[in-house]
Amino acid sequence: MNIEGRNQVFEAIKNGTTINKILIDKNFSTRKDDLIALASKNRIKIEYLPKKQLDSLSVTGHHQGFIAQAVEFEYSSVEDILQAAKGHDAFVVLLDGIEDPHNFGAIIRTCECAGVDGIIIPKNRACQVNETVIRTSTGAIANMKIARVTNLKEAIDTLKENGLWIYVCETGGESIYKQNLTGPIGIVVGSEGFGVKQSLRSYCDGIVTLPLKGSVNSLNASVASAITIYEILRQREQ
Amino acid sequence: MNIEGRNQVFEAIKNGTTINKILIDKNFSTRKDDLIALASKNRIKIEYLPKKQLDSLSVTGHHQGFIAQAVEFEYSSVEDILQAAKGHDAFVVLLDGIEDPHNFGAIIRTCECAGVDGIIIPKNRACQVNETVIRTSTGAIANMKIARVTNLKEAIDTLKENGLWIYVCETGGESIYKQNLTGPIGIVVGSEGFGVKQSLRSYCDGIVTLPLKGSVNSLNASVASAITIYEILRQREQ
Repeated sequence: MNIEGRNQVFEAIKNGTTINKILIDKNFSTRKDDLIALASKNRIKIEYLPKKQLDSLSVTGHHQGFIAQAVEFEYSSVEDILQAAKGHDAFVVLLDGIEDPHNFGAIIRTCECAGVDGIIIPKNRACQVNETVIRTSTGAIANMKIARVTNLKEAIDTLKENGLWIYVCETGGESIYKQNLTGPIGIVVGSEGFGVKQSLRSYCDGIVTLPLKGSVNSLNASVASAITIYEILRQREQ
Repeated sequence: MNIEGRNQVFEAIKNGTTINKILIDKNFSTRKDDLIALASKNRIKIEYLPKKQLDSLSVTGHHQGFIAQAVEFEYSSVEDILQAAKGHDAFVVLLDGIEDPHNFGAIIRTCECAGVDGIIIPKNRACQVNETVIRTSTGAIANMKIARVTNLKEAIDTLKENGLWIYVCETGGESIYKQNLTGPIGIVVGSEGFGVKQSLRSYCDGIVTLPLKGSVNSLNASVASAITIYEILRQREQ
């Protein structure tokens, strides 16, 4: 799997992603670069290639002269996530059909920054981990457990059995600022166009809603989830 | 100026953007569409063109068969923004060099949802309002005052003279959750790569910092500003 772009490759090395080889634009072969020093220190093989060859190997089209060939992303299980949450209140994010890889990558980045234990996604009708997701997550993916499940409801059952309260991030509920979101929690974020499926909504413990003061009636999916995730973090820290 | 994409054009009409003409893929000419009904109701001229012609007129490359030719975006002045804030505590967002139009558009959308009075951007070395910004803002731009200034410091002086407290959203300050952000406020958000310029930072009343729990050391600019803007909204509502 490719990791593309200078910052992305740099963060991936720093975060301990298993990298087979880094391909670098051969025009950079005489350049002093922190990335090259860091790769050498970590004994990662570097190969200098003509820019044209990098272009043809690039998946995102934005390699900036740096492509790392990483070991394929390994998904975790829901149990792995619960295991990682042992000793503190679990904090899990469930994505019900996010389709845009930029949104998915941005949510992974936010989750990592907020100390979320893991992310659960459905196997079907949703964006999976791909090059664009990895690029957008700017390295965060290396520290984030992501579980893929056939059925989100079953995953919610498992989380509930383990003491988590499951909230849906949607319009039409009580203001998020009036709810107690401390304790073990799972938060369900819906797709860009359709939100969280009705069948799943009624399956959860409550709906948390962000106030909207303008006339545009929705926030971007990655923005809405970031505000929600950080509100949970705020309540936990107090 | 083009507004492209079905939802974008639809929102623009709903929000009262001044539109000269809407160009629609002529394959849609027999289709029943809410948008066409809404445009007719608002007496906006519609022209059906071959898809190829729309392709050549498209700036973003994502027109989905709908391009609205809108009247050029009109910037406001700092005074306009202060005027709009009369009667309540002003809430202004200043962007110190956001370069990515997707981030700029996303920030406009968040600001509109949170009831921000206006956005101030520098005239140089920063993304200006363009087609991609408008598209990403999904119609929010029609309800948002945006002022362009030569010098952000002078704008900050004006805001201070009008009783606003100016905070910088950056790493290295006190946790945002420990600060009182009620009252008239301006919040400065930095560029994607470099944050807020040092000279500007020391010019403000304080730094607000979002807690970071992971090993990736930064949030996306539009995500960080959204969390900050909504934390201010939360404090105001209580």
